[in-house]
Amino acid sequence: MPQQLTIGLFGFGVVGEGLYKILLQTPTLNAQIKKVVIKHADKIRNAPDELFTTDADELLSDPEINVIVEVINDTDAAFRIVSTALKNGKAVVSASKKMIAENLPKLLLIQEATGAPFLYESAACASIPVIRNLEEYYDNDLLSAIQAIANGSTNFILSRLFDDGISFSEALETAQELGFAETDPTLDVDGHDAAYKLQIILAHAYGIICQQNDFLFSGIRNIGLRDAQYAREKGYQIKLVAQARKLENGGLAAFVLPQFIKSTHPLALVKDEYNGVLIESGFSDQQFFYGKGAGSFPTASAVLSDISALSYNYRYAYKKLAQNKGGLGLSDDYFLSIYLSFEENTPIPLHHFESIEEWHREPGFNYITGRISVKTLWRNELWRQRGQSLILLPDAISDKPSTRRDTLKASLEAFLN
Amino acid sequence: MPQQLTIGLFGFGVVGEGLYKILLQTPTLNAQIKKVVIKHADKIRNAPDELFTTDADELLSDPEINVIVEVINDTDAAFRIVSTALKNGKAVVSASKKMIAENLPKLLLIQEATGAPFLYESAACASIPVIRNLEEYYDNDLLSAIQAIANGSTNFILSRLFDDGISFSEALETAQELGFAETDPTLDVDGHDAAYKLQIILAHAYGIICQQNDFLFSGIRNIGLRDAQYAREKGYQIKLVAQARKLENGGLAAFVLPQFIKSTHPLALVKDEYNGVLIESGFSDQQFFYGKGAGSFPTASAVLSDISALSYNYRYAYKKLAQNKGGLGLSDDYFLSIYLSFEENTPIPLHHFESIEEWHREPGFNYITGRISVKTLWRNELWRQRGQSLILLPDAISDKPSTRRDTLKASLEAFLN
Repeated sequence: MPQQLTIGLFGFGVVGEGLYKILLQTPTLNAQIKKVVIKHADKIRNAPDELFTTDADELLSDPEINVIVEVINDTDAAFRIVSTALKNGKAVVSASKKMIAENLPKLLLIQEATGAPFLYESAACASIPVIRNLEEYYDNDLLSAIQAIANGSTNFILSRLFDDGISFSEALETAQELGFAETDPTLDVDGHDAAYKLQIILAHAYGIICQQNDFLFSGIRNIGLRDAQYAREKGYQIKLVAQARKLENGGLAAFVLPQFIKSTHPLALVKDEYNGVLIESGFSDQQFFYGKGAGSFPTASAVLSDISALSYNYRYAYKKLAQNKGGLGLSDDYFLSIYLSFEENTPIPLHHFESIEEWHREPGFNYITGRISVKTLWRNELWRQRGQSLILLPDAISDKPSTRRDTLKASLEAFLN
Repeated sequence: MPQQLTIGLFGFGVVGEGLYKILLQTPTLNAQIKKVVIKHADKIRNAPDELFTTDADELLSDPEINVIVEVINDTDAAFRIVSTALKNGKAVVSASKKMIAENLPKLLLIQEATGAPFLYESAACASIPVIRNLEEYYDNDLLSAIQAIANGSTNFILSRLFDDGISFSEALETAQELGFAETDPTLDVDGHDAAYKLQIILAHAYGIICQQNDFLFSGIRNIGLRDAQYAREKGYQIKLVAQARKLENGGLAAFVLPQFIKSTHPLALVKDEYNGVLIESGFSDQQFFYGKGAGSFPTASAVLSDISALSYNYRYAYKKLAQNKGGLGLSDDYFLSIYLSFEENTPIPLHHFESIEEWHREPGFNYITGRISVKTLWRNELWRQRGQSLILLPDAISDKPSTRRDTLKASLEAFLN
């Protein structure tokens, strides 16, 4: 029989209120919200007054409350709530990806010490059950690659840029108006949010615990209409993709970068605020999961699925962590095929490339495509240069430098010298 | 720590041999095949001779073997093996969808009596983890609809018919040559296989146990090139879809029928031998799972994931069955929008329709589109008529008869009388 759950909820923003409404419509799930902690007592809310309090301790020390659900925006406060609740022996569900990604080692220790379950399915790809499937379904040995569109805001912006031909700043404004992007969009558009999710995915897929700066990530701020036009001409779309791939050298490549996606690729299906995850496994080939990645109800429904799992005593076994005792780690010893567009009259970083496929020059639109070592790319932070837009080409990852067409590099260099 | 698994394997056909090869490549999974039961001792196999036996009891009564994996083709034998193994207290993994669908009530009783776990993820949509996600992730209250391309053979045939413009019989031959269809293709092309999978899905999604004849199902045998041409002109594809949808009347519509799929619909992505499952849930909106649905390794990798789950003591909780104590049942009280093409000089079943949208006549190509009650459709078995091809229109299910355009019906009837 499922366990009776009495919930203490932290946060009554879009996700918290969404969850409140969903729980009213799921009577078979034996779960009730007893109390909700809010920051501002004087705001008008669509729920009975007696449900709310501003006193966190009232919930954290209430012995009747056996589940704490935390859906607030303040990372530090979220960590305090989650760790206190776990130490008090309560089960916890959290949607705070930044907090989880930054504090995973500590949260693992607390879980081990207290034995209290901690679930956070909504923290990676919202409504898509990616954590649970990676945790339960895919054997570590066979999981050769993961590619994820993990951030709904940037995918929405790229869809507008691409489908509607509007600029990045116009698209960002639209996304903010529709509630798909925060007022401060930095975490989304500069790739941090997708990187947090990649950190969580790496833990559950490969048993690798890392910090954000342990891998390469960038966002979509520099992507312009000319880049979108290039993509269209080639039959590509542009997506911000968080990915990991096992290398022949025994290490794991992991990064978040914008990438050209062929129209036949499953990730091309992922439009607007949707998310998608493509899993490549040794024997099952490609598997693809797709669902809403932003918004009140998709996130709340993932939180609900965690609550439902708690009622059957589910917890993450962190199998892959147990299996991967230092065996598999992140590597920067590989190469990427990239497209780099740049403004007129900027120095062209030709010398960084291992090989060059194409060099395009026309008034107002310059780009190079070619292969580059990740070490070089990272050291020189090529994605950060002003007016420069770096986008991965399809099938970008390679263990080896390319020798193809580096005659072009030689002749270009000869011409320039 | 994961449990050490000693496996007794029944069957060394494509799936069994696939599993044998995969297990050799998954050292972190603590699982070894001790013995394999085969039917024909004299066949040459790609594995050491001492692995094989023809004596089932040798495995079923071996106390060292704690897991029986059954991947044979004989339904009756499969049931005997599975039920004996469960009664002997062994965990069981099976890939026999027909056996499971036909014997689910008995298998539930045996599981209850023995407490032994029984997993069969590969029995529905092969490599896609659909059973486990329905079982664990989606709350019954919110699961409004499921649409699945669950049979890789028919999807391969339809892809050939559609993309290559070859006839059904030519496409079937190609599928057989490539190993995507059985020598006797009846179970696939007449919709039985998809219907078995729908039975399994209904149990885990809605807690409904039913027999195959409790719902409407048909296959793709009558679909012709003109039907494919109609689809192309409208921008549709044709897919054999197993589906379930909650009705306003409180019942559940469930059936397997060929359907026109719009090119923007996620199921349109599902080509060749792939499978896809679209789940509509109250608050998470649409979620889509996609992966290989036929072939040795995709099926074997789903079997592997069950073995891996057993090592962590996973079992199906059959939550939805516990929740749905007779509350939700199958209904035939709804309407479908259909396309029906038919041969020249056959009586046109105009009178069966509630309303008619279109009636097309040209030499060699006749069709009607309109809305029909499921009771009428079923009673008259319209999908079985020779030379007649029945395909659902997009968004076919409706609780109410349509009143739109039945003026056309009136004028047609007036013209005919």
